[in-house]
Amino acid sequence: MDFACLEHMRVRNPLVHSITNTVAAHFTANGLLAAGASPIMGNEPDEMADMAAVCEALLINIGTLEQSTIAAMFAAGKAANARGIPVVLDPVGVAATPLRRETVARLLEEIKFAAIRGNAAEIGFIAGEAWQGKGVDAGQGAANAAQIAASVAQKYQCVVAVSGETDYVSDGQSTFTVKNNTPLFPKITASGCLLGAVIAAFLASEQGDDLAAVTAACTFYAVAGETAAQGLDERQSGTFGVKLIDSLAMISAQDLTAKARVEAV
Amino acid sequence: MDFACLEHMRVRNPLVHSITNTVAAHFTANGLLAAGASPIMGNEPDEMADMAAVCEALLINIGTLEQSTIAAMFAAGKAANARGIPVVLDPVGVAATPLRRETVARLLEEIKFAAIRGNAAEIGFIAGEAWQGKGVDAGQGAANAAQIAASVAQKYQCVVAVSGETDYVSDGQSTFTVKNNTPLFPKITASGCLLGAVIAAFLASEQGDDLAAVTAACTFYAVAGETAAQGLDERQSGTFGVKLIDSLAMISAQDLTAKARVEAV
Amino acid sequence: MDFACLEHMRVRNPLVHSITNTVAAHFTANGLLAAGASPIMGNEPDEMADMAAVCEALLINIGTLEQSTIAAMFAAGKAANARGIPVVLDPVGVAATPLRRETVARLLEEIKFAAIRGNAAEIGFIAGEAWQGKGVDAGQGAANAAQIAASVAQKYQCVVAVSGETDYVSDGQSTFTVKNNTPLFPKITASGCLLGAVIAAFLASEQGDDLAAVTAACTFYAVAGETAAQGLDERQSGTFGVKLIDSLAMISAQDLTAKARVEAV
Repeated sequence: MDFACLEHMRVRNPLVHSITNTVAAHFTANGLLAAGASPIMGNEPDEMADMAAVCEALLINIGTLEQSTIAAMFAAGKAANARGIPVVLDPVGVAATPLRRETVARLLEEIKFAAIRGNAAEIGFIAGEAWQGKGVDAGQGAANAAQIAASVAQKYQCVVAVSGETDYVSDGQSTFTVKNNTPLFPKITASGCLLGAVIAAFLASEQGDDLAAVTAACTFYAVAGETAAQGLDERQSGTFGVKLIDSLAMISAQDLTAKARVEAV
Repeated sequence: MDFACLEHMRVRNPLVHSITNTVAAHFTANGLLAAGASPIMGNEPDEMADMAAVCEALLINIGTLEQSTIAAMFAAGKAANARGIPVVLDPVGVAATPLRRETVARLLEEIKFAAIRGNAAEIGFIAGEAWQGKGVDAGQGAANAAQIAASVAQKYQCVVAVSGETDYVSDGQSTFTVKNNTPLFPKITASGCLLGAVIAAFLASEQGDDLAAVTAACTFYAVAGETAAQGLDERQSGTFGVKLIDSLAMISAQDLTAKARVEAV
Repeated sequence: MDFACLEHMRVRNPLVHSITNTVAAHFTANGLLAAGASPIMGNEPDEMADMAAVCEALLINIGTLEQSTIAAMFAAGKAANARGIPVVLDPVGVAATPLRRETVARLLEEIKFAAIRGNAAEIGFIAGEAWQGKGVDAGQGAANAAQIAASVAQKYQCVVAVSGETDYVSDGQSTFTVKNNTPLFPKITASGCLLGAVIAAFLASEQGDDLAAVTAACTFYAVAGETAAQGLDERQSGTFGVKLIDSLAMISAQDLTAKARVEAV
């Protein structure tokens, strides 16, 4: 696999608009800066079309929904679609409440996403909804993250990344696994949220092969996490959060080539 | 004192819904994760009843009030009460403005809290309001944090924790002091806010003896702070904030038994 | 230059009300605490006049505008003006969208600011707007940050700080440069936002000579950054963010006298 796209992203330094949850906002902005992108935040519906005019990618993360933020998500997503800017969906805790379920269902109906990123439960829930529509039992497929990723990717014609001990990235035709990882990732909040933003930055910089861009983003992030965790106890999540930001700036394309554990399924 | 409840909490890994201020959100989520609980945030009134259906404790922190968040607090609090889930109130800066005073007064009237946590000024203010109703001068009692804690606990039939150099925890009948502490706590923002969330996690895991649960939570948090501060200059608050998160994961029930300085008043 | 004002600020420990963006809130509160001030946040329009009654300075930062926050900014700004409390404007990304441009234009019309802080692009944009009113081409002046600072300071009768590799601070008559700096500042998010809050704290403590107060605040912040960056690789932005908070507490007036590189233009 070719990781030159990391360098492309850093050269391009894309401006990524994140509509994200209040918990993840600061960490996401610092992580994007460290990785080599430029962050901009904003949730005001009136401003969304104008933001799309200056940004190169959009992240929609539903971690802390409010009615006005939901309106902003639709306004921003439609404006980004109209301009051909890649849009990433992070359906945080989608199964937890009807508001989250309905918002994600409507987003998937009205916005064209370039990528969806979530954990196995979140993507599995979306897969289940898709399958129920076809009379298929969600439970069956939940056993296999690769199938779930491919199924959601086919349904929504986009790239899907399922994050976990192993990441699965699929465009519905081809699926890759990324086995770089650290048990410290689930110990910090917003680690998945930041990955969603990093995926958006890669998509902004590598238009044409979205599967390669998302796989590279997941690999870059996982290798940065592995590197940050070196020498740390699994309980040092505070220190890990700080070192992860450092690592996002330090990892090079050569490091990725040396350390990546990516395979086609 | 028995600190097995720390292990109970970690085994149970309770899902704690925090309606908290924008300053404390990220730190609170990371701190809950480190301590061994699971955080979820959300301030949208429409979602509150559904959140109560999946959560095991609720924190209401008034640090940055907005009208829609206030509506969310009442919706979430009532739903939690209906389901018997413990609710913790953190009346941040209650005396500062009429909006805060009135919101806290209404919350105390309409929601049944399992615990209230604040500093001496905040709990003293609530005590004063309670006493004024009985024609008692608030100023008199303000001299004695133990009395203030007991008084508010009696009035609202809950456990009250007054945080400070010494913590006072009372259910109105019995009162404990926790003398573990570090001068670095007041040097970081949201240190009290995170304690409120940790108290909620302990209450979710130890139903039946709320006084023991809150006292254990305060002791756990104070010992984690003491440990994090070891070797630090009092001015290293940035470093302390990171190490506190590490310590919350590292402190064990045995550490508490060895280090706790808890006494009945 | 006399840096006793740092000690004055720490003795006074001013309560600074920040209406700031969701990305910067936690970092700003921790930074104010470390520097020696007291933070309070709040964006609810109903609460703004009451906050002005207890606070000693106000920061208005437009980084993540929402309609209700805009209403809060006007309410808080007018209340602060009525009470003679210094108000600082940070026009984050003012050129990015019409909402930001119009909000800043209205704020500058309706609120009297003691200081405006931004980067060269932001202050240059405000200068351009001012100059267009006089038929002058904005592009011309954009070449010279000192002229831009002075021009905006004259137009709005306040102190203007242009942050960058060199800071320019002007009251329209006299202009100072601050050459202390570190390339790590632009690698962390909210570093400019925190400086805006620190300027507010200095203005609260040194009423009478606003130019000296703002210059001292910029110098203090830049020296803290230089000190925090010692021994760090330019890519260690996570670590830098933590050490910057430590440094804000550690830098003394004597350190400033020894390290300041401030000059009259």
